[in-house]
Amino acid sequence: MSKPYENLVILDLTHVLAGPFASTMMSDLGATIIKVERPGIGDDTRAFPPFVEGQSAYFAGLNHGKQSIALDLKSPSDREVFERLLQQADVLLENFRPGVMEKLGYGWDSLHEKHPRLIYGAVSGFGHTGPDSQKPAYDMVVQGRGGVMSITGEKDREPVRVGASIGDIVAGLYLAQGVSAALYQREQTGQGQKIDVAMLDCQLAILEHAVAITGATGTPPGRTGARHPTITPFETFHASDGLFVIAAGNDALFQRLCDALELPDLPADPQFATNAARCDNARLLKRLIEAVTLSQTKAHWIEVLTKAGVPTGPIQNVAEALEDPQLLARNMVATVQAGTDRPSFLAAGNPIKMTSVPDTTSRDAAPLLDGDREAILQWLASKESTGS
Amino acid sequence: MSKPYENLVILDLTHVLAGPFASTMMSDLGATIIKVERPGIGDDTRAFPPFVEGQSAYFAGLNHGKQSIALDLKSPSDREVFERLLQQADVLLENFRPGVMEKLGYGWDSLHEKHPRLIYGAVSGFGHTGPDSQKPAYDMVVQGRGGVMSITGEKDREPVRVGASIGDIVAGLYLAQGVSAALYQREQTGQGQKIDVAMLDCQLAILEHAVAITGATGTPPGRTGARHPTITPFETFHASDGLFVIAAGNDALFQRLCDALELPDLPADPQFATNAARCDNARLLKRLIEAVTLSQTKAHWIEVLTKAGVPTGPIQNVAEALEDPQLLARNMVATVQAGTDRPSFLAAGNPIKMTSVPDTTSRDAAPLLDGDREAILQWLASKESTGS
Repeated sequence: MSKPYENLVILDLTHVLAGPFASTMMSDLGATIIKVERPGIGDDTRAFPPFVEGQSAYFAGLNHGKQSIALDLKSPSDREVFERLLQQADVLLENFRPGVMEKLGYGWDSLHEKHPRLIYGAVSGFGHTGPDSQKPAYDMVVQGRGGVMSITGEKDREPVRVGASIGDIVAGLYLAQGVSAALYQREQTGQGQKIDVAMLDCQLAILEHAVAITGATGTPPGRTGARHPTITPFETFHASDGLFVIAAGNDALFQRLCDALELPDLPADPQFATNAARCDNARLLKRLIEAVTLSQTKAHWIEVLTKAGVPTGPIQNVAEALEDPQLLARNMVATVQAGTDRPSFLAAGNPIKMTSVPDTTSRDAAPLLDGDREAILQWLASKESTGS
Repeated sequence: MSKPYENLVILDLTHVLAGPFASTMMSDLGATIIKVERPGIGDDTRAFPPFVEGQSAYFAGLNHGKQSIALDLKSPSDREVFERLLQQADVLLENFRPGVMEKLGYGWDSLHEKHPRLIYGAVSGFGHTGPDSQKPAYDMVVQGRGGVMSITGEKDREPVRVGASIGDIVAGLYLAQGVSAALYQREQTGQGQKIDVAMLDCQLAILEHAVAITGATGTPPGRTGARHPTITPFETFHASDGLFVIAAGNDALFQRLCDALELPDLPADPQFATNAARCDNARLLKRLIEAVTLSQTKAHWIEVLTKAGVPTGPIQNVAEALEDPQLLARNMVATVQAGTDRPSFLAAGNPIKMTSVPDTTSRDAAPLLDGDREAILQWLASKESTGS
């Protein structure tokens, strides 16, 4: 069985994070990614730290297995190459400021007329419509404006950024989803379509609880530190050697937790008998639980609570996560260009485990800038000569 | 043009968040979702606050437009209905503890034998393989274990939870992506396949920068509050009336920022001339910038910096985000069961703007428990009588 997107060619004009994240995901599912970069500089992230032997680990982790050709889309000869590539491509991805593709003569309408099967996926800060369409954005601008920062951080302290760039990454996930739906539909209709994903829109799309609460009560939720806003106990607790997580999401789990901690009176206590009561008395409950958990180590309590069937676990730093036996068993730590004489880099594995996708932990190298020009031109010539 | 997944039927055994989030996304793209719930109780989130006229706003926001049938998968007569539904379904989604479907007689192998076209999508805390496969998990368990909490929060303070439940939501996004790729592939092969998504895996998959840094340097990144770990200035700043965001992601933007703030000496100053230097001197740079920005309001600086082409924006709470003109113009605030005599709820709109999907802001009601039994049985009978 081949991979789902094995025979697809994605022409990828995107750079930095959201777009490259989407095309890497499509690559993990089998697609060939031809990365079209600016001559001389290429993707900005080639200059992002940290570096190993002069190569950006950030770029390598986000662009493994892609091919690169440098094209100046204002130069006639490079435009000719680009247009030959368009003729062979299934999908075009871009993350320019809205309107830039039109100025280059490659807007959706004209592309669709010439290449009716081509799927056009765009990701931008604010989208191709609306009053702020032309404004520049980066991850943190949409994290701030979209609401997630207002609910991330400690109560009575300033909001913090989500440590991962979810402004970009979630937009990349939605872009790949839109392209995938369009690919499915093309099987029926023979026609491509345009997908327009805005980073800001995606931030609202992931708020779930906070949207429900604000819509129903009129009051936006605030920050609750390490606590879930509406489930208790569902937060971090101190053991003798540091913090760990307990997530007792319903009454049955709370009962099991109390049994395991030998706090038999708590489940029947009106202060804690229901989730609503536990939320009202969360600080008192935390003190009662920590009066027990402070006596032993995190490892002790994680073992005891796991045996009791209570969701629990450590707070791992990224080095610990990269050595987590479960994540290693799931092939979630991949090595880029392992076994070559070039430096190797770590990347996250493919979290979509599916029958048709071999679950390997080695990834081909990220391309050098323009490093695949000859191979791409040869491939183009061979496609054109067979008329396929 | 119909929606991409218009003719697809998804049989959805999932509850709480990750699975329902995935099926809502598929529903927005046109799929029919038949939600199979436990008799009597149904999806746990029917009991999640806040409530409007006795209905959970949380449930409504996550399950709009779905149909519900209550089936006890241990009862022979309900199993017969379920098996008739399987015969008509394109996709089955489940989020039971691994092994539960096998015990029910509906494991992947036997389902695939009987229903070779059926696509089977599973989402669980730790996945269907590995030493911790059987352990229970909730959002916060995987946020803690997967590493994102270790990089979210303030330096020298305890880690905080990402305010949105990204442990679940990102898993839902990957699940939908896997199902979508399998749907595309089924067009070629005629065969379904199994997709196994683990919430923990997905947490590692979104760390990008942190994985690159840890892999290249051996040292995991820590928490940096509202600051980007490797780009400066890319953080919150105080204006006279509160915090706002400036994200000057490269030297050219830093130059524009300094011009706009009338700090002409900064770009050439060796302490700030490169991003690496700015990162080393981030606190000093923040003081110099705030010495200017404290003199005027957030709105003033956002206007000035936007005119200068510097990415900037407010930190909005969720109520403000829900009234943001750009998000409204993008139809990102949807109303569930608008125009009926039942209470209405807010939900996020569909962030995948694509040619074939009408971009509306009204959503059908979330189903009452077992509320569509008769309609579903009639639909089944009609499908069976036409043999389609």
